[in-house]
Amino acid sequence: MGVELVDAYSVGPVPNGGYQVALSCRAALATLGVPDVLSVSSYFLAPALCGPGELHVEPVKRGRSTALASVRLVQEGRERIRSLVLAGDLSAHRGPELHRTEPPELPPPERCLHMTPSQGAPRLMGEVELRLEPAAAAFLRGEKGADPELRGWMRFADGRPTDALALTFFADVLPPTTFNTYGMTGWVPTLELTTQLRRRPAPGWIRIRMSTRHVSAGHLEEDGELWDEAGQLVAISRQRAVMLPGGPSGG
Amino acid sequence: MGVELVDAYSVGPVPNGGYQVALSCRAALATLGVPDVLSVSSYFLAPALCGPGELHVEPVKRGRSTALASVRLVQEGRERIRSLVLAGDLSAHRGPELHRTEPPELPPPERCLHMTPSQGAPRLMGEVELRLEPAAAAFLRGEKGADPELRGWMRFADGRPTDALALTFFADVLPPTTFNTYGMTGWVPTLELTTQLRRRPAPGWIRIRMSTRHVSAGHLEEDGELWDEAGQLVAISRQRAVMLPGGPSGG
Repeated sequence: MGVELVDAYSVGPVPNGGYQVALSCRAALATLGVPDVLSVSSYFLAPALCGPGELHVEPVKRGRSTALASVRLVQEGRERIRSLVLAGDLSAHRGPELHRTEPPELPPPERCLHMTPSQGAPRLMGEVELRLEPAAAAFLRGEKGADPELRGWMRFADGRPTDALALTFFADVLPPTTFNTYGMTGWVPTLELTTQLRRRPAPGWIRIRMSTRHVSAGHLEEDGELWDEAGQLVAISRQRAVMLPGGPSGG
Repeated sequence: MGVELVDAYSVGPVPNGGYQVALSCRAALATLGVPDVLSVSSYFLAPALCGPGELHVEPVKRGRSTALASVRLVQEGRERIRSLVLAGDLSAHRGPELHRTEPPELPPPERCLHMTPSQGAPRLMGEVELRLEPAAAAFLRGEKGADPELRGWMRFADGRPTDALALTFFADVLPPTTFNTYGMTGWVPTLELTTQLRRRPAPGWIRIRMSTRHVSAGHLEEDGELWDEAGQLVAISRQRAVMLPGGPSGG
């Protein structure tokens, strides 16, 4: 099916990766006829382009409780991202609850740092209202050597609610955690990203904690935890990224 | 290409999921002509069978530094597992090192609990020598209510070295972390599993820590950290599993 990648969700010239994931998931759900993404794993093959593309959805399995699709985003004849989307019905899940970490304790949004395009943040930040916890955002003060961890509040800038699908986008919106440790140099492209949806979010802000435990020869994971305003865990995410000098290229 | 799933790597009647992943990765590497898996994401569609199958490898990208393949394991006309395999050369990676967690401090292997098939452990445990830290393995004492976390040592029982490919298997060998918390009831199938390889392991034991932070209506992640005997992080893994009553079914 045809899709248009609008330039409002871009970082420099490239549409945000999470935005590409969310578009892929929406196409998968429409084809499968199932309400929710449970897990999505996306592998980034080449930088996407702002403009038209095609989403090719292959239904792989239609089971009793879950369905799986493989989704390819193709632009100008080249595949940009390949995703596996496991879908189901989050509202039908029954079983134990256990949470060993709490949502991050943050100052209220109005006391956090609001990153906007007019202050030099990526254009994407005009669509998503991101408010970073000042204490954790060392890179915004030009510091290095801090922990590779960021925390903050997120919501859509136009006030529309964050649905479960949007969490697959929000999981890839924060700046790289490595900016805090190594400074804002080079770029840190995502090689692959998996997001697990756990619950449809309550209305309001999403709180997010993004942290890195292991950088191995420049390859690192970024682990996200996303909580809704009711204090419920709504998603976790993990991506593999790599620290590179310079800017986007065809890899 | 044809593949034989031997019954030595099974849990009950079903070949271990990590074993299926490793077979899929081996086929991808052979087709792509690239030495190492960097990341692999696998989605489990139906329980695999001991016996013959076919691995269908679709090369998706052959880039300068990475390559991607999609791999399907088909048995008796039914797809069992779909994987995306990102491959490259781990020995060529250059960049910063940072590790915010240490390898688990464990008693020496001979003072840990050796799970063997003759004591009722799955047949798989005849191929992999797994020695669980006694303090963390509450479920083996019939206890419940402990943290959903397991730690231990692993290596091949026949003494062959653990190569990087084998880590994609080792990441799925431990019993479910939830056994410690909820007891050894029901089954906890893996819906999807991603493993990130970071470094080729040094010879010797692999130390592993597997932990769960969030159980959401019975859906949970199991996060693995794998370290080699030199104390280097060699892989991290995350799977989504679900707690179900009863035994394996077609889902």
